[in-house]
Parts: sequence; C-alpha cells; structure tokens
Amino acid sequence: MEMMSDAQNRRQILLTPGPLTTSESVKQAMQVDWGSRDGAFIAMTARIRQRLVALAKGESSHVCVPVQGSGTFAVEATLGTLLSRRTSKVLILINGAYGRRMARICEKMGQPFDIYETAEDTPPDATHLAQLLQRDSALTHVAAVHCETTSGILNPIAKIAESVAAANRSLIVDAMSTFGAIPIDLGTLMADAVIASANKGLEGVPGVGFALLEKSALNRSEGNSASLSLDLHDQFTYMEKTGQWRFTPPTHVLAALDQALTELDSEGGIKARGQRYANNCRILLAGLAELGFETFLPAALQAPIIITVRMPADDRFDFQKLYASLNEQGIVLYPGAVTQEKSFRIGCIGQVFESDMTRTLAAIGEVLKNMGVPREGLRPAG
Amino acid sequence: MEMMSDAQNRRQILLTPGPLTTSESVKQAMQVDWGSRDGAFIAMTARIRQRLVALAKGESSHVCVPVQGSGTFAVEATLGTLLSRRTSKVLILINGAYGRRMARICEKMGQPFDIYETAEDTPPDATHLAQLLQRDSALTHVAAVHCETTSGILNPIAKIAESVAAANRSLIVDAMSTFGAIPIDLGTLMADAVIASANKGLEGVPGVGFALLEKSALNRSEGNSASLSLDLHDQFTYMEKTGQWRFTPPTHVLAALDQALTELDSEGGIKARGQRYANNCRILLAGLAELGFETFLPAALQAPIIITVRMPADDRFDFQKLYASLNEQGIVLYPGAVTQEKSFRIGCIGQVFESDMTRTLAAIGEVLKNMGVPREGLRPAG
Repeated sequence: MEMMSDAQNRRQILLTPGPLTTSESVKQAMQVDWGSRDGAFIAMTARIRQRLVALAKGESSHVCVPVQGSGTFAVEATLGTLLSRRTSKVLILINGAYGRRMARICEKMGQPFDIYETAEDTPPDATHLAQLLQRDSALTHVAAVHCETTSGILNPIAKIAESVAAANRSLIVDAMSTFGAIPIDLGTLMADAVIASANKGLEGVPGVGFALLEKSALNRSEGNSASLSLDLHDQFTYMEKTGQWRFTPPTHVLAALDQALTELDSEGGIKARGQRYANNCRILLAGLAELGFETFLPAALQAPIIITVRMPADDRFDFQKLYASLNEQGIVLYPGAVTQEKSFRIGCIGQVFESDMTRTLAAIGEVLKNMGVPREGLRPAG
Repeated sequence: MEMMSDAQNRRQILLTPGPLTTSESVKQAMQVDWGSRDGAFIAMTARIRQRLVALAKGESSHVCVPVQGSGTFAVEATLGTLLSRRTSKVLILINGAYGRRMARICEKMGQPFDIYETAEDTPPDATHLAQLLQRDSALTHVAAVHCETTSGILNPIAKIAESVAAANRSLIVDAMSTFGAIPIDLGTLMADAVIASANKGLEGVPGVGFALLEKSALNRSEGNSASLSLDLHDQFTYMEKTGQWRFTPPTHVLAALDQALTELDSEGGIKARGQRYANNCRILLAGLAELGFETFLPAALQAPIIITVRMPADDRFDFQKLYASLNEQGIVLYPGAVTQEKSFRIGCIGQVFESDMTRTLAAIGEVLKNMGVPREGLRPAG
C-alpha cells in the first residue's frame, strides 16, 4: 500500500498511449455508487451515447453502442458483429500492432480476411487499395487504423474512405487514439463503424469502449456474432428497448466519461483539444531535436498523439535509468513498439499541458547530463 | 449534471445484486492515474491475483486470471477457454437467468451442451445429476451457479461437486455473487474454475471479473478460444511472462479492488463478511415478514445475498411508487426476475449494515402507510 500512498500525493503525468492523465474532476466523478438499472444511470448512459455520436456528427446516420472492457474488446465486438463469417471478407490495412491485432482477431474467430501491409513508417496508398479491392470481388469490408500508436503514424483515413466508397465496400475505422483529438465527420467520411474508447482523447478512465455504427449496417448484423458479451447488435437492441446495459456496466467509469465529455465541451470541443495536443507535440519534437534525439517519423506523418524516439546508440544512454528517473518525478514514459529498430515513446495526449512538456524535457536533459551522454551520443545506431 | 450533484451529496444504499454500495476509501483509491505498464501497477496486479486465489485456498492448485468487463465476460471467457468446441460437452445446471445465460453463451459460440433445469425455487439434485452424467458419456464438464440471484437461491455446490468428481468430470462454478461472502475452499471443492467479479462480495467497483483456474486444465486449453479478448489462456500466458495485461486494464477499477481486498482482510475475512451479510438478511426477512410480505424462497434455500419478495396482490400496493420513494432517500431496490410470478428484490450485500436494513424497513413501512395498504393486502396473488 506504500506505493499507492506515494502516488496519491502527486499528479501522475502519463506520457503514454493510454491510460492517460485525467483531470481531478473526472476522477472525482467516480466518488458515487450508481444503481446500474436506476433511472439516473439510464439517463447518464443515454446522454453519453448521444454526445459520442454527436462528436462525430453522426446523429442522423449512426448510433453509439458502448461495450464493457478495453478498446480491443470494442474492436473485436465490432468486427464480430458487422462481419458475417459466411458472406463477408475484410481487407485489413496494417502498419503496426493494432492492424496486426485486427488480423489476429479475425483469425481466431474464423473470419475470412486478407491484409495489405506496409512498413511501420509508411501509410497505405489509396490508389493501391483501390486496385486491391478491384482485384478481389469477395472483399466486402476494409478495416483501417486512424493513428497507429505503434509508431505514432497518422494514416490518411479520408483518402482510404474515398477508395472504399468508390469500390462500394464498407469501412471500419479503429479511431481509438484519435477520437476526441482529431475531428471525424461522419457526414463526409463514409464508414460503417468508428471505434474508440473512453481513455484516450476523451480523457476518461479505462474500462469502456464504443462503436459508432451506421444504422442499416447494424440492422443487417443480427446473428453474426459468435459471442454473447461482444454482440453489439444484441447490446444495441436491449439498450434501445430498456435504456439499460445487458450486463453490469462499469458505472464509475461511465460517470467519469460523462464528466470528461462535459470537460471536452468546456475546453472548446475537439478542435481546441486537438490544438492543445498539437502544441504539446510541437514542443516535444522541438525539445527532443534540440537535445539531439532523432524521431522515427517524418513530420508530415506524425500524429499529435505519441512520438517514437529512436534509441540512442551511445552506451552511456540507459533507457531504463531514464524511465526510472522520470518515474520518480511522476512522469511515465513508454517503451517502444516499432519492430524495425529499438525505440521508446513519449505521448502528448491526456490532461497534460505545455508546462508538463517543458518539465519533461528539462527532466530528460538533466538525466542525460547525469549519464554523461554528449549531444552526438543521442544519434541512433541505424 | 444536477443528478450527479444530488447523488454526490449522499451515500447510496444499493440493495441490488450489484453494482453495490462501496466504502468511501474504496472509491478514494480511484483518485490516482496509473500507468498500466508501469512497475507499481504490475505489482498491484500481482498482489490482487495472489489475494484472490488465496481467498479460495487455491494457491497450490489454481491461478487467478482476471479479465476486463462484467461478470458475464468472465463467464464467457472461462467457458470459451476451458471447453473445446470439438471434444467437450458441458451440462449446464439451470434454475434461473444466470444458468440460462451460460446456455445462451454456449449456443452462440457453437459449443455442444446439454441442460439440467429445475424450477427457480428448486436446487438441482446431486443424485439425479450423477445419473445424467452416467447416461451421457460425451459430457466432459458441468457448469453450475452457486447463488442464482434471479431468486436468491443457494445451490448445493459441495454436493454437485461430489457428483461431478465421482463421475470424473470437470466442474465450472459461477460464484459471481457468493465470492467473498460464502467460503469456497478449493482444497476440498473439486472445480476446474471458480468465476467471480470485483463488485459483489468483494465490494469493489464494476469493470473487472476473474476466474480461478485449475493449473492443468488451463494448460490444456491453449487454442480453444475463438475470441482474442476473452482468451484466458492467452491472457494468463502474457501476464505470467510480463506481469502486464495484454490490453488496457481498467486501472482505477483495479486500484479500487486492491483497496477492497485490504478492507475485506480488515473486516476479518470472508467469515466475518458472510456473518454481516447473514445478519443483514435475517433482519430484512424478519422485518418483511412483520410488515406482512411473503418471500419467494423457504429459509433453507435462501442465500444471504438477495431476497425475492412476492408481489402483493392489493391494488393499493404500487411497486413503482415504493421504488421512487425509497430512491429519493438514496435507497435503491431491484425489480424481480423470477419468471413464475411477479416479485421484487432487496439485496443484503455490499458496504451496508444493520442500520441500513432497519432504515430501509422503516422507509418501506412508511410508504405502505401512505399507500394505505393494510397488512393482509401484502399477501401475493398466487
């Protein structure tokens, strides 16, 4: 319990792809016990669902179906609900771990799929995608990740959507790390599903995900899912009928999300939040460059979500020491995930601000000085 | 947001099968943001898993595998992981909604199963169970619900386990509502799986469930699951290797569970907690009888978890009015669930005490007086 007491005494700066730093008031919203089938909680669920679909301007075309668990649960639930194992085949665009994970989900559930894989620093090409769709008439769906936090790359979702719509196929978007941070307009972006979770750009706490599902696609999906817990058609039908969740919802997590959505409004909506994240990202990129670090992605491909830093070659640089030293100051970095070279990551989303970025950069600079790594020692091996 | 402010001003007495009333200190434990791949959180996960398996005296034989989501997610994950769709067949004991739900899970996942169903006020008979197992040699597993909160019935899990073990089959126990409230000793109870969640007898908040899995049964289960999110073999293997969760855990929910487990210890463990619940139950039963209500179950079958009250026949009795009136005082009752007659339910678990029971009974008495229902008007129609 000592660790908990320590942690309680200070604000944690989580520079990760989530869970993230949340506001005190979001956490405070979890100080109430809600009856999950009570009227007040039913109203809260309805309010959250309406606000989420409105954030993507999908009120007329889409519905929000929340589901218990992590973002991956929401992704699996969406794939399992919208795809038919008999009549659907999905082309999965892969340039990182989350694309690969969608392929693994389909493999396990016996869902026919194909992949279009590019390197982790290379976005898929919309023209090539169009060719692939033309070549295989069995393909009914395309699944894409908006921002792959594996590297931090922003995939060209609008161009992808255009190719998919032109080929008259359906698009499923994993917008886990971008929802709330980068605008998605379902009035112009043609997608059957946009999937996200509470604890990324929305700045809630983890424990619930959701999909914005196009109404007719959802209506056609009855009976597809081989899972009861992850059947979004069943979840939706029961929720529409009763206002309640089929199975116990994470009541405190939802109260936090409700509060987080109010705070997103107060901040000025997705545009203002995206600007704060972009500013955080700019400060980090400039500061890291000034220290001598190299980052993995060219600026044009970098989403304002998380930065992959190429691991310095100099023996005096010790990432574990850097991690531990910042951790002692309540700043949490993240290990690297790209497969082609060693790296670490620094996130710029969550309830974190310019001052947190400059504080982090100063703390890194101090550790480097103590390690005795010169500026040129921060160049990567590759 | 008005409703939330109202609720924040008072302690909620949730007399439901969960989510339940939790202590202020359990909710306070959610006031920290944890990095889900950080050392302190890894230590917390390990501590929780060890404590859960120890509560059932399973340290030498079983491991705890937690999973994100509600209790049903944990039940589906356990069935999907331990059962092979090719070589397993499970006999599901049904006398309420949770037994029926297990059958629905198996049906959706294409898992061969059979059912042994009894009325909602009738426990399964261990001798008849033995006969069923003898009759069908294809049956490899039996799945049973310890307490069916549909009615509140306590099923004879020890006798069931004896029949299953004598027939050399494997037992899966849904102990959702009893874990932490009624002792389970895996040293004497032969079971491949005991499933529960954070927000019942453990008095944590909802958002995570877990299974205590017999080690060799878990080892044999690789490749069974058709779900990535709900594959407990995969969850276990990754967790053992890294100490981390495969996919984002509900960090705040787990911090609350960690604190709740400390408070269970402080209260004197499962025995003391079970005595408090039994005392709550006795007070409610006596008070309800004194008011003139009839309850659904005979005393010998009543678990100290939740009480089903037979709906009074008198027209002057209006359950919605009773519900609303108690709700205004921060007391949340629960609708009935048994299928054979109208009813409502009052729970006796969670961070609630003798004083809450007497306050609830007094509030009910006051409403009855205002409704003008005489004592004999509380007799049910049947």
